[in-house]
Amino acid sequence: MARTINFNAGPAALPLGALERAQKELLDIGGTGMSVMEHSHRGKAYEAVHNEAIALVKELLAVPDNYDILLLQGGASQQFAVVPMNLLPQGKSADYILTGSWSQKAYKEAKTLGTARVASSTEKDKKFTRIPAQNELDLDANAAYVHITSNNTIFGSQWAEFPNVGNVPLIADMSSDIAWRPIDVSKFGLIYAGAQKNLGPSGLVLVIVRKDLVESGRKDIPTIFQYRIHAENNSLYNTPPTFSVYVLRNVLDEFKKQGGLAAVEKTNREKAKLLYDVIDARSDLFASPVEKAARSTMNVVFTLKTPELEAEFLAEAQKRKMVGLKGHRSVGGMRASIYNAVTLDWVKGLAGFMREFKA
Amino acid sequence: MARTINFNAGPAALPLGALERAQKELLDIGGTGMSVMEHSHRGKAYEAVHNEAIALVKELLAVPDNYDILLLQGGASQQFAVVPMNLLPQGKSADYILTGSWSQKAYKEAKTLGTARVASSTEKDKKFTRIPAQNELDLDANAAYVHITSNNTIFGSQWAEFPNVGNVPLIADMSSDIAWRPIDVSKFGLIYAGAQKNLGPSGLVLVIVRKDLVESGRKDIPTIFQYRIHAENNSLYNTPPTFSVYVLRNVLDEFKKQGGLAAVEKTNREKAKLLYDVIDARSDLFASPVEKAARSTMNVVFTLKTPELEAEFLAEAQKRKMVGLKGHRSVGGMRASIYNAVTLDWVKGLAGFMREFKA
Repeated sequence: MARTINFNAGPAALPLGALERAQKELLDIGGTGMSVMEHSHRGKAYEAVHNEAIALVKELLAVPDNYDILLLQGGASQQFAVVPMNLLPQGKSADYILTGSWSQKAYKEAKTLGTARVASSTEKDKKFTRIPAQNELDLDANAAYVHITSNNTIFGSQWAEFPNVGNVPLIADMSSDIAWRPIDVSKFGLIYAGAQKNLGPSGLVLVIVRKDLVESGRKDIPTIFQYRIHAENNSLYNTPPTFSVYVLRNVLDEFKKQGGLAAVEKTNREKAKLLYDVIDARSDLFASPVEKAARSTMNVVFTLKTPELEAEFLAEAQKRKMVGLKGHRSVGGMRASIYNAVTLDWVKGLAGFMREFKA
Repeated sequence: MARTINFNAGPAALPLGALERAQKELLDIGGTGMSVMEHSHRGKAYEAVHNEAIALVKELLAVPDNYDILLLQGGASQQFAVVPMNLLPQGKSADYILTGSWSQKAYKEAKTLGTARVASSTEKDKKFTRIPAQNELDLDANAAYVHITSNNTIFGSQWAEFPNVGNVPLIADMSSDIAWRPIDVSKFGLIYAGAQKNLGPSGLVLVIVRKDLVESGRKDIPTIFQYRIHAENNSLYNTPPTFSVYVLRNVLDEFKKQGGLAAVEKTNREKAKLLYDVIDARSDLFASPVEKAARSTMNVVFTLKTPELEAEFLAEAQKRKMVGLKGHRSVGGMRASIYNAVTLDWVKGLAGFMREFKA
């Protein structure tokens, strides 16, 4: 069976090598005569996988020693609540920078738990088609933290450079662009990312958090939601989602084989350039609603001139075994999600199709 | 590779047919050219799996129409908090019946959120070796709910008959014995169960909850923790743990092929009888710390006369490719977890080994 060319926004394509390894080992990991799913999370076979996954996150993302790496459940949507539960004490306020639907959701959830304010929003002027400039940020120097969404999956925009927030901890939801390139983790107080776009299967959320924030976090919340409990227990306080962690390990191992995140970034930039170049070259047909400086390297959003052309484009793509190109229902148009596991060849195929479509 | 005989307490053995199906389909589900992990949770291929899993829960457990079936993340440990967050309003109190470590944890977590009281505990008298009788329950007629743990994985005890709690909603953590037999769901206000013992892989928790409790649940908690949000969205409010749901579907389909839960119960009772019979017959060597009426059909806990004999027993079992027989670190001794997926043949092998050991 030929592999379908998958531009899904998430859950999304996974590296073929990671899947093939999972298939090969599904009934028997490491000669144990058992599936990784059947191993105790406190046994040697699973713990080796668990610790290797964490070590690969640390290595590939160059996570400094003063950060904890947590593998949790509930996705980024649960972190929208768990972040303020831990890090927003009564009497303090948190700043949210709104650049799309997901940052709005994070902000709304924080407001159910404490005081949150909007430090900037790009909604009103241009319907989230850009990222705010530094001088547009109305930052509270006493904020508990500043929250951003590093990449906006739905609108197709991305922070090219992260904002300067002074001494206030910067918290980023990186669900849709974690590990797309090397980053300086030390600029962040906390990073979280649902795995199902750039890292692995759904059901797993990665949290990278500075140890002093873990320690100073609130203690008057349920045990299960305290970062410190998971940090103290190496994310084994309760049963982790073992198979999802196992696939994360396989995926990260593929990135390492590719040469680490510097190599991953080079390919990702090439992929994005291929698509934006053809969008710009064929302005008779395509348009990008996003300001050039804010264009996402992960989610390439574009429109065609008419709904009829868009329908025809999708139908022709389908014939070429390309799926997932329909834009999010809230914005319409097209979207090609080109996460780490989407191959350069797949993107070349899409760019070629776009170049020739109706030419 | 021969399959290892797996008596793990959880994550635990899965039906071979469910795993073989997952292996076969891992790179391509339903001729789509994509792994189930790579499909959008809002696409047809995954939604069919999702809805089939829910339909199988409804069918096998005979869930009445006035209940919602939710597939959530965070395991039973998260439900320890989420249950009182939803169902324990200020000014009300909840009753907890303590029969082991997990019910103690549930009680402690509830106390971080509101008022909880102990309606009965079997800890003091005999170290959780029994289940309280109806006349030992000190129930509050005005309680928001009564919480029990239906099977105590660590101590090896189980409720043979559920308590009568009048009109107060009965809530049960059934993580270690869900679906071991047919039950009357209508006796419960809410049932929850981490999947990784009797239903599937870790990273998934099943919640079956009466619709009136969903509707009357608290609205002043974060969106992501409200049962109503997940009920309104068919557990697709946020990205579900898609592969875990897929394996749950495979596992439930195996139970159905076996003849449903009546057939599953028959085999489970036979398995438990085999082991308890040899424990009782060989009282020269083995002892069960649990009162006969409270013996678990899922976790058979037993001791040998000396630590040396126990070490020898485990070593001999290992030679026979039997794993997972060491008791929980907090109680010592032996434990054979014989969940639904543990085959009758495996248990016959263990019983035979026990009959002959040092004979």
